[in-house]
Amino acid sequence: MVKFNFNPGDKIEITTKKEALSGLFMPSKENTFILKLDNGYNLGIDKKNIKKVKLLSKYKEKKPKSSKVKQNSKLPTITILHTGGTIASKVDYETGGVIARFSPEELLEMFPELKKIVNLKSRLVSNMWSEDLNFQHYNLLAKEVEKEVKAGADGVIITHGTDTLHYTSSALAFILENLKIPVILVGSQRSSDRGSSDAALNLICACNFIANSKFQDVAICMHSSMEDESCYILPATKSRKLHSSRRDAFKAINTDPIALVDKQGKIEYSQKVKQKKGKLNLRLFKEVKVGILKAHPNMLSKEVSFYKDYDGLILEGTGLGHFPINKTDSSTTENEKVFTELKKLSKKIPVVMTSQCIFGRINMNVYTTGRKLQEIGVLGNGLDMTTETAFIKLAWLLSNFKKQDVFELISENISNEINERIKDDFLE
Amino acid sequence: MVKFNFNPGDKIEITTKKEALSGLFMPSKENTFILKLDNGYNLGIDKKNIKKVKLLSKYKEKKPKSSKVKQNSKLPTITILHTGGTIASKVDYETGGVIARFSPEELLEMFPELKKIVNLKSRLVSNMWSEDLNFQHYNLLAKEVEKEVKAGADGVIITHGTDTLHYTSSALAFILENLKIPVILVGSQRSSDRGSSDAALNLICACNFIANSKFQDVAICMHSSMEDESCYILPATKSRKLHSSRRDAFKAINTDPIALVDKQGKIEYSQKVKQKKGKLNLRLFKEVKVGILKAHPNMLSKEVSFYKDYDGLILEGTGLGHFPINKTDSSTTENEKVFTELKKLSKKIPVVMTSQCIFGRINMNVYTTGRKLQEIGVLGNGLDMTTETAFIKLAWLLSNFKKQDVFELISENISNEINERIKDDFLE
Repeated sequence: MVKFNFNPGDKIEITTKKEALSGLFMPSKENTFILKLDNGYNLGIDKKNIKKVKLLSKYKEKKPKSSKVKQNSKLPTITILHTGGTIASKVDYETGGVIARFSPEELLEMFPELKKIVNLKSRLVSNMWSEDLNFQHYNLLAKEVEKEVKAGADGVIITHGTDTLHYTSSALAFILENLKIPVILVGSQRSSDRGSSDAALNLICACNFIANSKFQDVAICMHSSMEDESCYILPATKSRKLHSSRRDAFKAINTDPIALVDKQGKIEYSQKVKQKKGKLNLRLFKEVKVGILKAHPNMLSKEVSFYKDYDGLILEGTGLGHFPINKTDSSTTENEKVFTELKKLSKKIPVVMTSQCIFGRINMNVYTTGRKLQEIGVLGNGLDMTTETAFIKLAWLLSNFKKQDVFELISENISNEINERIKDDFLE
Repeated sequence: MVKFNFNPGDKIEITTKKEALSGLFMPSKENTFILKLDNGYNLGIDKKNIKKVKLLSKYKEKKPKSSKVKQNSKLPTITILHTGGTIASKVDYETGGVIARFSPEELLEMFPELKKIVNLKSRLVSNMWSEDLNFQHYNLLAKEVEKEVKAGADGVIITHGTDTLHYTSSALAFILENLKIPVILVGSQRSSDRGSSDAALNLICACNFIANSKFQDVAICMHSSMEDESCYILPATKSRKLHSSRRDAFKAINTDPIALVDKQGKIEYSQKVKQKKGKLNLRLFKEVKVGILKAHPNMLSKEVSFYKDYDGLILEGTGLGHFPINKTDSSTTENEKVFTELKKLSKKIPVVMTSQCIFGRINMNVYTTGRKLQEIGVLGNGLDMTTETAFIKLAWLLSNFKKQDVFELISENISNEINERIKDDFLE
């Protein structure tokens, strides 16, 4: 039996019956040996299949140098607000997973290219995975942006985990009324210490865009393709993560990206950049209760009535905006109960339809089901918001307006969340 | 004031201050006049803006001729099982909406091209919108397919509403063990009496595929692009509706389409067609209770505990398979309660992770959150099933196997629902 007296992070080479593999030693369990390959993939190998193990180099933790950033008065000033996520993380050699770990100084040191494009400030707002963020964090982030606006920043970059980046971008777009600088959310799909990391390009493109554009809004900057050449500037309220691991996971939904930016700073606009008037005003989130209910076969009516003490509900329906509400020729009467419960709920709170299709518009005029839903007060007809944006918008409206007004405001285009160019794309 | 003494369905021309429009008169409410334009769009016009209205032609309902279909012994025999939906519907001039209306005879009469490709039989199984279908309907459909297999059919086409077509295709793929004929689900995004209808091409391509392929499985046949030229044969358990209105709304997820079929019957395969052994066996659905819970910011723990009396639960998480379970620097402790409730639930029933990203694989090894979820027993690591397929699979497993076995079987590839070609595409 081969001995394994290595420390996590040590570079080793192992030889199995089939092949020789090199990578980093990870904490291994019982009979399985875990090797982190150079491509970042954790490989589990049964210890009994291992013939030989060789130490290539000992693990050394790099200590960050304390670097003082020099300011160039000719360049625009950008503040990077860190919230955590992959872009601010590296492999944790204790667990073999990825942990949020970089301090702002470390990040600046990692991407020296940025200093040529902009003057950088940087601070940590929070250090957490994006899936854990809630309405209070949106408020906190908006207040931090406000501080930067008051301090005269030319732009803000928010580094953020990708999982809920599109929820946060929507939330900030609603909170930050009359924002007159670019606030760009940047994530990465691979941690910064990996060769395949998209962190550098995403940050460089965001800086290039801020330095060379008159954009005054919230947006997302992520890879435009699987190549490491250019990024899309994506609309805050009309974008979505559409792949769990690809670097070009983020896509504009029911609209075009705002712009394409490359490494060298070239910008191609596909949407007109609008200029704003008025003073920055923050309309924050309150602790409202909003749910998301996804339609599915064999739905039980109690899945609807559960939300009776909520302030609002998003129905993620099927197709053009449908829900299982019609009597069928099967013996069950559950669909009719779903209808009854939806009717009760729609009278009490705003119930808003979105579509599981993701792409396309809600049209509840075409089919009987849609008409019935409209009759009982289900909202959302004609809208083309993603479920995620509709959820954020509903919570934000309920935080800032009287409930009775929310029923109307949900259909008004407040922060480019509704594409009104095509009134009805049923024939698209 | 202009008078409106027309019957629904009458072809009329109206003149407003701005323009002249022609279309079909729809039942109009109060002060709004509704005109169905030739492109199918219902236009609401304020009556006070109308200057002139002219009758172009009276509405005449076409009565179906009773046509006896001649059989050609040289052609394969296909049975069309109708379940309703747009493909079997036309505009209802009483309501202005679209209603399920065609009898099988009417449908055969509408698409005479089909008779050149195959011998057709046809019968109505149910007449309903697909959003209303439940597990009992899947059982009913599977039994009807079994009847056709026993009667010697060379293939079966199921006409179906598009909203939940992919749920039904998954369900049938699991139920019909050792199916040795093609069972092709066909929907349409525009009703058959509209110029832009996709019904004809979808049916023609399905017939062409059945007539010219040795395929032995369930699949979907829908437009491959917005052009009216060819269709994809899409995998039953790895496809999804991804646009609310486009004719090419259906896409293969995490795999390629099985084949591309054109009008003329040319077939290009992108996946190998497998041949099966053994006797057709039906493993039907029971009335199990399975829910879908979509992760979102500000999630309350009672959204999880609600499912305590369910038999199984799908978690539609974020990214690689995450849920808001970690303590944050905000004052709320709700995330930790979500974690506690998930822990309780995962011990009792199978709780399976899927991703809101739709594309890509679940990988709960990469981040701490994923590791914590695996530790408490959340299933699904490494899988690349859509939420819809995972939901159907879980309900089907719970209907046919002991609960303890379901915890293991969810990760086994039973009906091509898991793409095992790439073991871990985190680097894709």
